[in-house]
Formats: sequence, C-alpha cells, structure tokens
Amino acid sequence: MNRLFVIKIGGHVIDDESALASCLNDFAAIDAPKILVHGGGKLATSIGKQLGIEPHYVMGRRITDAPTIDLVTMVYAGLINKKLVAALQAFNCHAIGLTGADANIIPALKRPVGEIDYGFVGDVHTNIDVKNMLLLVNNNLVPVIAPITHDGKGQLLNTNADTIASVLARSLSKQYDVRLVYCFEKKGVLENVQDENSVIPIINKKIYQQLLLDKKLADGILPKIENAFMAIENGVKEVLIGDAKDLMQNMSDQPSGTLIRQ
Amino acid sequence: MNRLFVIKIGGHVIDDESALASCLNDFAAIDAPKILVHGGGKLATSIGKQLGIEPHYVMGRRITDAPTIDLVTMVYAGLINKKLVAALQAFNCHAIGLTGADANIIPALKRPVGEIDYGFVGDVHTNIDVKNMLLLVNNNLVPVIAPITHDGKGQLLNTNADTIASVLARSLSKQYDVRLVYCFEKKGVLENVQDENSVIPIINKKIYQQLLLDKKLADGILPKIENAFMAIENGVKEVLIGDAKDLMQNMSDQPSGTLIRQ
Repeated sequence: MNRLFVIKIGGHVIDDESALASCLNDFAAIDAPKILVHGGGKLATSIGKQLGIEPHYVMGRRITDAPTIDLVTMVYAGLINKKLVAALQAFNCHAIGLTGADANIIPALKRPVGEIDYGFVGDVHTNIDVKNMLLLVNNNLVPVIAPITHDGKGQLLNTNADTIASVLARSLSKQYDVRLVYCFEKKGVLENVQDENSVIPIINKKIYQQLLLDKKLADGILPKIENAFMAIENGVKEVLIGDAKDLMQNMSDQPSGTLIRQ
Repeated sequence: MNRLFVIKIGGHVIDDESALASCLNDFAAIDAPKILVHGGGKLATSIGKQLGIEPHYVMGRRITDAPTIDLVTMVYAGLINKKLVAALQAFNCHAIGLTGADANIIPALKRPVGEIDYGFVGDVHTNIDVKNMLLLVNNNLVPVIAPITHDGKGQLLNTNADTIASVLARSLSKQYDVRLVYCFEKKGVLENVQDENSVIPIINKKIYQQLLLDKKLADGILPKIENAFMAIENGVKEVLIGDAKDLMQNMSDQPSGTLIRQ
C-alpha cells in the first residue's frame, strides 16, 4: 500500500509565526498524500476576550456555550484555517481547508449531558466514511482540517484536534499505510523529562509496559501514548510523537521523535 | 449540455434567519449541479465594532485594511460559510464550504494602488481553471463559496461576491449550460420602481436599449444588468435577477424574476 501522512499541529506551533512558516514549508515538501489537522492556539481566547466571551468552566472543564462555538468557528475554521491554506498554496501545496461539516467528512454526536454539560462539543464516530476524503487526496488535494464538526442536523460542534487526526488516520488505514504524526512541544517521548535528548526512539506495547513498570514516563504523556496505541490497534501503521521543528526528519525512515508501533 | 446553477445570495438574506432557512431549503431541493456564493451581511460590521475595527473609507470607498481582512475571513469564511454548510447538510445537500484560496479555485490579484489604495481587495482573473470545481461538482458535492480569494503568495483578499458568482458562471459555461441567479431584495427588474408587480420578465440587448431610451430603469439596477450582459457575452446561458423568496420558481422554466438573455 502507498503511504499517507496525517499530521497534527497544535496551538504552540500556530502561535509561533516563524515555527509555523518553517513547519508549513516542511509539510509542503512531503512527496506523498497528506492531511494537516490543526488546533486552535491562543487566538481564540484573545479574540474571545475582545468580544466579551469569557472562558466558561464547569468542574474544571471548559464548556463550549453558544457564543463559544461561534467564536471557535470564526477563529479555527475562518482565520486560522484560511491563513494556513493561503500559506500552503504559496508553497505550491494544493491545500483545501475544511471542517468536519464540509462534504460531511467528519460527522459527530453532541456529547450527551452527564455530570457535566459540555455544551456544543462533538464526539466523533469511530469509523467514518472516507469516500470524499479519498476523492480529494487521490486528486492531489491536501485537506487542511479545522477542529470543528457537525451533528448532521445543522449544529456545528467543537471537537478535539488530536481525536480528529486519529479518526482520520484510522479510517484511511484500509487504503493507505498511514503514519500519524503528533507535533508537540518536545522532541519526543522522553525517558528523563528533564533531558530533552533522552528521546525514546521506538515504543511498542512490550516496551510501554516496561516503561510503566519502571515509572519512567511523565504523567502528561500517558494519554498521548494511549491514544497512539488505540490508533495502531485500529489499523494505523505507526504513530510518531515529535517536535514540529523536526517534521521533515519525522516524515523520514530515521525520525528523531518517538515512533509508536505494534 | 447539462444545466448548472450558480446562485448568489446577499447580505439581506443572510441577515434574515427565516428567509435564509427557506432559501436554503429551496436551494437544497434543486436537482442539478449547483454552486452557492454568499455575501457577508451585517454580522461582519457588528463583530468588527465589538473588536474595535471601525469601517475605514477613503473617498467614499470602503478599504480592507489588515484588521478588516482578518475580520471578514473570520466572519465570511468561518462563521457564515460553516453555518450555511451545516444547514445545507441537514437538508441532505452535500455542501462543501470554500474560499477562493481553497484548492486555488479562485486566484486573484491584489488591486493595484491608484488614486485609492483599497488595501487587501482582490480582483479576480477573468478566466479561471475550473478543474477542481468540476472535480467537486461532478462528484455530487455542492460548493458554498465565501467571498475571500488569495494572491497565490500567501495573502488572503476580500472580493465582491457578485463578481465571484459571475466568474464561476463564465468559467463553467464550457462544460455546462449555466443559469446564474442573483438574489436581491426585489422580485426582479421593475418597469416601475414603485410597483413590486411590474417585473420585466425578459430582457435581451434590444429590450435593454429600449428601456434605457425610455429611461424606465432605476439607476441602482443598471450595474447589475451590465454585469449580467457581461456574463452572457462570455458564455453564460442566462442570468436571472430575482428575490431569494422566489428561488424555487426562479430555478424553473417559468421564473418570476427577470431573465436576461442574449
């Protein structure tokens, strides 16, 4: 099978203009089918403040109320997504910016109200129909996905960008050998969180169990690794966790980040 | 040739929730390839005010300065475009929301600085490559276009929605019999501007010359008609000017608005 890359970049890259330009340049240079999924960055918070939309928390969890879903739709699907698309087009990368509502590529369900009412938050179906994604990707278009989905009944929903990247990677793994790359603020999973150079090059299930037993992993990284194994158990060939600065190398067969495999 | 509809809806429809829902319902029901082009509405102005972005005029012309291009990108390409897409998806219309930057569907040139510096305003190339538009349309997707373009060098640009609709209609007229529909706030071109029922059913070049000689046309409608003839002289089969409320009828062979033909 041919390779396809799903790259997720988070807020810390989007907020740093020069890191972003360099990352987009590297992304544009990838000579294979690819999808970029982006998060939000601080822009939504600062524009929200100017609009008098205060972050709203219940039991420590951020709530997406009606003004907030409008805000993130404007900032993520409008400002950030279209700036990324225009920048990639300038690098001759045929970007097409979309949300999950567009062409119904990522249908979601509004999170049921339990102990907490999260508001307009969408949980993504585990298996999505990739017909329209394949139509784009197989015609040399490069989807750039903002973390907004919809419920199919007209309501837009706020959805975690890591989850969107993982669902897309899983759903495309029948047609492609998918490498899912999570760009974050460290070079990879570190054996010693104080030492940036202690990147663990490969983690499989066995190594992971040993690392857990040895209590070598920082708490913050555990959900990311669990998420990666979930993707792998659902067909994704490999997941790479690394720094956006190292994207070029992390696309290669000698990545500098952490490769997570079966 | 098969028929294709390019429908442009303006701010007055977007600002009126029930008129919009009814118009989208009618649009969704059109059983032919179709494209929706939308304008902005008052939302950009009111959100701009909250963000402290005051409309900026030079010699009576609105200028798109740097804060304004960000504002319209948020509001047109983000909030309005994605709400339209989600609403159409709920009507089983496979909408995909795009700007001219996406898939490079509408490249533009920043308007040269003359007597007035319009700022980040894009003038659209007269002939555009419709390869990617055809890819979408021929696969039963329904493009929903926000009036934002780009210069191919990374800069987003503000572009008149009427112009975008006309350029798309012209550029697709080699593959389709295109009917371009401009929805505005009247039933059609009126013979007597005081009388809503005095719609002129058909205008061709000869009738137009006579109407001009008889001074029957209101000044405000002249640019719209000139624009329509320009589209027709460039391959568009027919242009219809009518009310968004009458969209369903204006899609038929017995339109209630004004049909402009060769």
